[in-house]
Amino acid sequence: MSERFVVGLVVKNRFGVLSRISGLMSKRAFNIDSIASGASPQAEFTRVTIVARGDDYVKDQVVKQLRKLVDVKEVHLFKNEEISIEHALVKIRVNEENKQSINQLISDYSGKIMDFSCDHVTTEVSGDTAKVERFIERAGDFGIVEMCRSGVITMARGAENSLSER
Amino acid sequence: MSERFVVGLVVKNRFGVLSRISGLMSKRAFNIDSIASGASPQAEFTRVTIVARGDDYVKDQVVKQLRKLVDVKEVHLFKNEEISIEHALVKIRVNEENKQSINQLISDYSGKIMDFSCDHVTTEVSGDTAKVERFIERAGDFGIVEMCRSGVITMARGAENSLSER
Repeated sequence: MSERFVVGLVVKNRFGVLSRISGLMSKRAFNIDSIASGASPQAEFTRVTIVARGDDYVKDQVVKQLRKLVDVKEVHLFKNEEISIEHALVKIRVNEENKQSINQLISDYSGKIMDFSCDHVTTEVSGDTAKVERFIERAGDFGIVEMCRSGVITMARGAENSLSER
Repeated sequence: MSERFVVGLVVKNRFGVLSRISGLMSKRAFNIDSIASGASPQAEFTRVTIVARGDDYVKDQVVKQLRKLVDVKEVHLFKNEEISIEHALVKIRVNEENKQSINQLISDYSGKIMDFSCDHVTTEVSGDTAKVERFIERAGDFGIVEMCRSGVITMARGAENSLSER
């Protein structure tokens, strides 16, 4: 059964490592939903989170192939119950008639208003993918001018470092 | 003068486009701070946000070279005053003595507590890069077990779509 899965990586901050990762994913035609990369606590490493789709065989292959890459220090396949969060900036078209409903929608999803004028509002919404997608779907009824999503970041529950135990 | 700059892209959802982008950045030795990619309102496109460093010449080159890539539909160099946000999951070591101070720190930065036990707390903090980095620095005094950052996402202020005007 094809399903969504999340892989976390710790990679060395070297030119080309991100390129090798995405090159591998594309060469093997692995389906990427999102990829996010940012600094880790140690300056020489970057942490990358990839959301992809596939069955158990694909999952296994993704992890195995990523582990073989130069400058990839750790690869971890997350389980579904981990902490997973993403955020989105959504610019919505507004007019006098729907202003109240849009405000209500933003408030229902605990969105932050980042910018607004008489004809638009830009809000930041965060949470798990399902919540963010429900918000986007509902905002779509009013008209989305522009949207930017961060990609998912994930961390294991509990006190351990999810990416040093494997 | 070398400074931090943000480039937004709209790319076609084709295998290999992210790989070509990161390959270009690494081949030309452009310094990437973060990269984030996620779905755009139109299903056939993905929006990518890259934070990089360099002087005016580098900035110009990054934009020009990215525009030449296959499947890259739009490239936009953002100005500093735009809406820019990132988020981080930070797992902090906790003990009886410092629990109060860590709670206070999280509350000062409007962090959300995602998970905790007697010896750790995992919090989500969001905002501009400077705020997130200040939080990480202060959390570092208590001991960071693990950290995952989303990379920056950016959107122009105002009612227009920042990535269709160029």
